[in-house]
Amino acid sequence: MTNTNNRKIITIGREFGSGGRLIGKRLAEKLGVTFYDKQLLDRIAEESGYSKEMMESAKKKAKNSFLYSLASAMGTGEAGPESLSLNERFFLAQFDTIRKIAEEESCVIVGRCADYILRGIPYATNVFIYAEEADKIKRAVNEYGVPEDQVKKLMKDTDKARANYYAYHTGRKWGEPINYNLCIDSGYLEIEDIVDLIIAYSEKQVWRESTIYDD
Amino acid sequence: MTNTNNRKIITIGREFGSGGRLIGKRLAEKLGVTFYDKQLLDRIAEESGYSKEMMESAKKKAKNSFLYSLASAMGTGEAGPESLSLNERFFLAQFDTIRKIAEEESCVIVGRCADYILRGIPYATNVFIYAEEADKIKRAVNEYGVPEDQVKKLMKDTDKARANYYAYHTGRKWGEPINYNLCIDSGYLEIEDIVDLIIAYSEKQVWRESTIYDD
Repeated sequence: MTNTNNRKIITIGREFGSGGRLIGKRLAEKLGVTFYDKQLLDRIAEESGYSKEMMESAKKKAKNSFLYSLASAMGTGEAGPESLSLNERFFLAQFDTIRKIAEEESCVIVGRCADYILRGIPYATNVFIYAEEADKIKRAVNEYGVPEDQVKKLMKDTDKARANYYAYHTGRKWGEPINYNLCIDSGYLEIEDIVDLIIAYSEKQVWRESTIYDD
Repeated sequence: MTNTNNRKIITIGREFGSGGRLIGKRLAEKLGVTFYDKQLLDRIAEESGYSKEMMESAKKKAKNSFLYSLASAMGTGEAGPESLSLNERFFLAQFDTIRKIAEEESCVIVGRCADYILRGIPYATNVFIYAEEADKIKRAVNEYGVPEDQVKKLMKDTDKARANYYAYHTGRKWGEPINYNLCIDSGYLEIEDIVDLIIAYSEKQVWRESTIYDD
């Protein structure tokens, strides 16, 4: 399939401390497209009527995979979409907004299972950014200002919540290469060089549909 | 650490059917360096005195992880290096030859835990090539000539042997991003574009030692 409308969506999955968010931001600036990170939450809230704070808090609770699954499985007892749990409804709202954005404009989206939500859209480039633990700790302490005695726990909890949330909603494994077109260790290139590498990739990308969700 | 000698070693781990071997070959041609694939086995055999056939057959047996572990754990009962099992001695010979090659020349090495064996050598670029199952099947049938009714089993067995062999000798998980600098799905770029992407990466790479083996 050719990318007839010249649209490009780049999704970034990232480990905590890998610099993935900054890479996404610089990528959007360089490509001159919208960067969806926290702004995405604003827009989902705006379109769905759900509270940003509640959605964000539900997602963070995925740190405990069992409780998250339990809360996600509990409907309201009614029939129809209203019978979905809050977690499911939040995810549906997120799904609708991300699909809508992808139809409207080129952009960079960080996190939120965007790679999965955009399956079947052939003009998406899915990237995963990771790094060695020592590098992530250094970045989290020096650049995000996380206190040194808390960094390991925060990193572990954050990535665990991301992995659980991704697994619950996609049935797939977060950070596993096959879910992405390209996975890059951010510890061996300057941020700007990573941005350029992703752009070089997407310029050569064969725009086709993925088959990984065919089963 | 700077790469003072301008040496470059590129190691390629790859799933069966991903085209990783061909990518390695084209990469070596384009860089004008030696390509080590089957030639590596010749050289290990030459330097160690072990039979190529026996080494190759031992590696293939890793398909059964339990039997491979068992065979690898069984020494000869003597003290010293002679007490190592054949599998361990084969791996040691491979280790010595790969380290020696990396000290002598720039090159591309496919498979054989080269990424792990070269840990601590700061001028190595470790790449993993993977692809969607449907793409790998297509390539294996059309380009490697594997009969269609055998391709799924051959693919599964081959990758299982690679994963077990890697896990046994490195204690790490084959195909997990953190073991590589860069992981690329070969289904979304032409082979030549993947080669160029890896070269572009290695030209910008910050040459430093990995910390993933520090524990």
